[in-house]
Amino acid sequence: MRAPMRFFSDNAAPAHPKVIEAIVASNRLDTAYDGDEWSARLDGAFSDLFETEVKALWVTTGTAANCLALAALCPPYGAVLCHRDAHIEVDEAGAPAFFGGGSKLILLDGPGAKVTPEAVAAACERVRPDVHQVQPHALSITNATEYGLSYRAAEIGELGAVAKRRGLAFHLDGARLANAVAFTGESLADLTWRSRVDALSFGFIKNGGLNAEALILFRTELAEEIAVRRKRAGHLMSKGRMAAAQILALLEDGLWLDNARASNAAARTLGSAAAGRLVYPVEANELFLRVTADEVETLRGQGFDFYDWAPGEIRLVTAWDQQGEAVERLAEAIAAL
Amino acid sequence: MRAPMRFFSDNAAPAHPKVIEAIVASNRLDTAYDGDEWSARLDGAFSDLFETEVKALWVTTGTAANCLALAALCPPYGAVLCHRDAHIEVDEAGAPAFFGGGSKLILLDGPGAKVTPEAVAAACERVRPDVHQVQPHALSITNATEYGLSYRAAEIGELGAVAKRRGLAFHLDGARLANAVAFTGESLADLTWRSRVDALSFGFIKNGGLNAEALILFRTELAEEIAVRRKRAGHLMSKGRMAAAQILALLEDGLWLDNARASNAAARTLGSAAAGRLVYPVEANELFLRVTADEVETLRGQGFDFYDWAPGEIRLVTAWDQQGEAVERLAEAIAAL
Amino acid sequence: MRAPMRFFSDNAAPAHPKVIEAIVASNRLDTAYDGDEWSARLDGAFSDLFETEVKALWVTTGTAANCLALAALCPPYGAVLCHRDAHIEVDEAGAPAFFGGGSKLILLDGPGAKVTPEAVAAACERVRPDVHQVQPHALSITNATEYGLSYRAAEIGELGAVAKRRGLAFHLDGARLANAVAFTGESLADLTWRSRVDALSFGFIKNGGLNAEALILFRTELAEEIAVRRKRAGHLMSKGRMAAAQILALLEDGLWLDNARASNAAARTLGSAAAGRLVYPVEANELFLRVTADEVETLRGQGFDFYDWAPGEIRLVTAWDQQGEAVERLAEAIAAL
Amino acid sequence: MRAPMRFFSDNAAPAHPKVIEAIVASNRLDTAYDGDEWSARLDGAFSDLFETEVKALWVTTGTAANCLALAALCPPYGAVLCHRDAHIEVDEAGAPAFFGGGSKLILLDGPGAKVTPEAVAAACERVRPDVHQVQPHALSITNATEYGLSYRAAEIGELGAVAKRRGLAFHLDGARLANAVAFTGESLADLTWRSRVDALSFGFIKNGGLNAEALILFRTELAEEIAVRRKRAGHLMSKGRMAAAQILALLEDGLWLDNARASNAAARTLGSAAAGRLVYPVEANELFLRVTADEVETLRGQGFDFYDWAPGEIRLVTAWDQQGEAVERLAEAIAAL
Repeated sequence: MRAPMRFFSDNAAPAHPKVIEAIVASNRLDTAYDGDEWSARLDGAFSDLFETEVKALWVTTGTAANCLALAALCPPYGAVLCHRDAHIEVDEAGAPAFFGGGSKLILLDGPGAKVTPEAVAAACERVRPDVHQVQPHALSITNATEYGLSYRAAEIGELGAVAKRRGLAFHLDGARLANAVAFTGESLADLTWRSRVDALSFGFIKNGGLNAEALILFRTELAEEIAVRRKRAGHLMSKGRMAAAQILALLEDGLWLDNARASNAAARTLGSAAAGRLVYPVEANELFLRVTADEVETLRGQGFDFYDWAPGEIRLVTAWDQQGEAVERLAEAIAAL
Repeated sequence: MRAPMRFFSDNAAPAHPKVIEAIVASNRLDTAYDGDEWSARLDGAFSDLFETEVKALWVTTGTAANCLALAALCPPYGAVLCHRDAHIEVDEAGAPAFFGGGSKLILLDGPGAKVTPEAVAAACERVRPDVHQVQPHALSITNATEYGLSYRAAEIGELGAVAKRRGLAFHLDGARLANAVAFTGESLADLTWRSRVDALSFGFIKNGGLNAEALILFRTELAEEIAVRRKRAGHLMSKGRMAAAQILALLEDGLWLDNARASNAAARTLGSAAAGRLVYPVEANELFLRVTADEVETLRGQGFDFYDWAPGEIRLVTAWDQQGEAVERLAEAIAAL
Repeated sequence: MRAPMRFFSDNAAPAHPKVIEAIVASNRLDTAYDGDEWSARLDGAFSDLFETEVKALWVTTGTAANCLALAALCPPYGAVLCHRDAHIEVDEAGAPAFFGGGSKLILLDGPGAKVTPEAVAAACERVRPDVHQVQPHALSITNATEYGLSYRAAEIGELGAVAKRRGLAFHLDGARLANAVAFTGESLADLTWRSRVDALSFGFIKNGGLNAEALILFRTELAEEIAVRRKRAGHLMSKGRMAAAQILALLEDGLWLDNARASNAAARTLGSAAAGRLVYPVEANELFLRVTADEVETLRGQGFDFYDWAPGEIRLVTAWDQQGEAVERLAEAIAAL
Repeated sequence: MRAPMRFFSDNAAPAHPKVIEAIVASNRLDTAYDGDEWSARLDGAFSDLFETEVKALWVTTGTAANCLALAALCPPYGAVLCHRDAHIEVDEAGAPAFFGGGSKLILLDGPGAKVTPEAVAAACERVRPDVHQVQPHALSITNATEYGLSYRAAEIGELGAVAKRRGLAFHLDGARLANAVAFTGESLADLTWRSRVDALSFGFIKNGGLNAEALILFRTELAEEIAVRRKRAGHLMSKGRMAAAQILALLEDGLWLDNARASNAAARTLGSAAAGRLVYPVEANELFLRVTADEVETLRGQGFDFYDWAPGEIRLVTAWDQQGEAVERLAEAIAAL
């Protein structure tokens, strides 16, 4: 009975059965690398989904997706603006600098890991336009953010506008983009290229996938270079069909969106029970709660697992497969604290 | 009927059913990254197999395994000695320099992509020991070689001896090590650490795996650094259990060796039929045949697919699942040319 | 009359006549690179000066000195702790990441660009010891700091102690170390290796040199690697004798210390006149003054040049050659504001 | 009497007195870095010399000039074609890969270190146009070559044509370009941009300079990026006026050409005496002679110093200041062997 009580991370959840079925179904002889029939369908499938022509490449991790994109969008001698709490700054082991040949992250502040146009403009202003300081070349945001907040399309549009005005390329880390779509009800197109996003790391692994993310390029001319960088980084798998098949399975009949709705719903249930304790509103599948050490002990004693985020604060993450019963039990446990 | 006639590449073959079963079985909630129970078993399983204590990390490609190892064995300002036809030089898009921070490959000659102790020593002698020339820091060989030749343990031992004498770390690209073990009948221990190999890329993908290779470290103190480099290169998958499970499935009951024996046997059958045409002896699962353009056309017309290696030369690769009938038919077709 | 009125930067000052004489005297045929007699004398000269055996390499910029040292002290996947206002963060165009292969700077706060042991310890504590976060490997401080404060030996000793306890290498950017020595009256040995500094960028260019800085290695075993890195970075000049000769000229009869005393004295004179306006105490050759826009205009109108540091704040820098008259005139002008 | 007998390397020669005078004259307070009046004159001076608008940046070594240019002309995932004996391959410690972020050198064969259009085309043909192999992005040649041969403008024009046809940028390492101009009598314009050269490392240090080379950009839009890369590589000196002043001194009244004529003349004198022993014709200021071990000993016994190039082969290099008497004596000594 341990597994259903786990609210530690959506990374820990299993893959959706349809994803596994797709891997099994794709397990037959075909052209190696990305020359197979599944990989060949990605561009079309995502172009349909995004209502514009895109190029799509599979990779096995969000770090790879993010950093391949940033390496193409920012030169080695440039900087990427991002939030101080962004995954690329905090949890990718310096991968942006590795893929980018020594490029820099310039850190922005703001509640809930959200980036504002004002913060972008102010950061640009602080850099002297000379050769002694690293000049900004790109902006990267995360949607939903690392604190579970969802940007609306209008907000991203404003960020896109300031990015273009400042000559910055615009990258979106969409490890939990599905949750943001489910929460806002806005279209993928509005949340990305119509808001001037150039490249998107579209996350599937936290949302029912096994080990496939999609790197979506709205500036399709970047695809050739990034395909080379993917191989050079050891990310071009021999049997890439297994990655493409996973993604296609999640796209079919909107399974990706159903999964996100399920995890969002579980988070909402918990959020309602924890209303007075919420550090941020619940806009995706993550919750940050204020709790005392005693309360933490109580919850753990009841069999719930979660992340000790900071002193007096815990993080709960719900996943696509979170069972109703466990969620209800945790909601009751929180309410009873 | 197209698939069984394909002799293009062992990369194109499907994964073994037991590998798929293992992925399915491991698809349940567990700790993310490599904190799961399958990943935890790798060190022990490989230590048993190699008869010494090793550290083992999964990665998804041979390029990642090779280049993570080389980055730890050779500084950015150093050089790796390898054969001119080595996969790391020819087919990894410059990944050794990317992972290695600009390190260099110094190329050795020799028939069949085999490296000799004399070639290693001569290459070292040619480098002036000053700051103007890039100094050799490591040696990398491939077993079985890119031309399907298998080193014997004694040969590797001689290479290991010259490497140590010259202060070179020693890396083995074992994308087809299983085939070399199957051919030589020598132990993994003799073919690696007893011959002073420091790090091994142990290939499973060409031999029944789906997307998991093992990086085996005989110098166990390298594991910590390489684990960091793996994350930094975007190669630490969230649900790493699926990679570990694949490898464990192939290790169980010697499935990896059975698979290699099967592909070697298929190659031998073809080699017997093609005796007069062989560019190299058949010592693994690859064959290089001298053929005329007309003969190529004849074989293709009969439904066989393969790689046009060079003018007048084709490459045939057999895989673990190559069906007897297709192999027999190709053998007959070659004999009938 | 423009030149003597300039308080913009000590970088702009001319080289000392004895430095020029030394360049002229060394301009004769000798072995290229650093094989000449002047370069050969550096190790000995600095070992005497530091009262311990050191290795010393000339380079042409402080950026090169800093970043060659840091590249040897911190791996590509590691981080260097430094102050948010450190030159390596603010004014070296990302050179630490370039030389270091993508290494990271973790920024510390503290008044006057001074690093405290507490800030070092707290920064280390904030990093989770796992592969997802970049781990600290080195500490770099600047003495005198970018705001003209001088560390005492005891302070550096405490920083060295915490560095060693945390497993951090310790680098000192001594672009204005001479000024700190002149101010504190403490020995070079106490300010460096006795306080556990591993590598020192010893600045001469701001202090009477033309284009030679010395990289001093207290861990002498680093010299071989750094010599290779220096060549690889294009910093091994063909006629290196001209660099070594400059440094030797400044070491002779303590000219380096005389020069620093002269610029410190000029700064003190200005500081006395500006007492109520000082943002930081004057402990080297830089002053930061609170001034109104009108006052700035008044000073500029009187022919004085300086740096507009921030709104309401200007920076004055004195150089080794600052003439008494100009300094007096500026002191009077400030007092008269 | 040792110095005048030295034929080891033009790197070892002193700087021309006018260069030293220029350094002395420029040693006064001015704007730091490259904001001074001397640096400001470089673009114009070189634009006049090359009969077209160029951008010119000073650097202190040929390695820096070469590798800054190549880093701008070839992406990290690309390759530069060059001769197997090119300085960038043999004598720059891997700097092209360091500056270039892991870019690769693809080596061409050909007598006398000369590159032919056929060799360029063949090398391009050998690379499969896929993501597995590093694709060529640039061509770099050296004029005069590392074996003292001078390309004629027509030859460079053919190389430029094949480069453009293949989509390759074109870099010229002109460490001894002055000698090639002196030998061929052709114009700088014909030897460079009219032959489609994009960037030139124009050498002054082997030709009377002290520590200043010029990086000339015929594609002027590259200047901004390269200025950033120069700073980032620690090559932006604080008192850059001393570098610009050197170059201007050598440009004045064609001193650079006079110096090259002088060293070429000395080489010709030696070449006439050594006619039967020459490995290559004498087209610049380097000679490679076939000699026995006994003959080597005889020459050394007479006080001549030179480089033992290979078994049975020595290299002699003449410099701008080589005195007539020493040259005559060596010529006689060779003739008398």
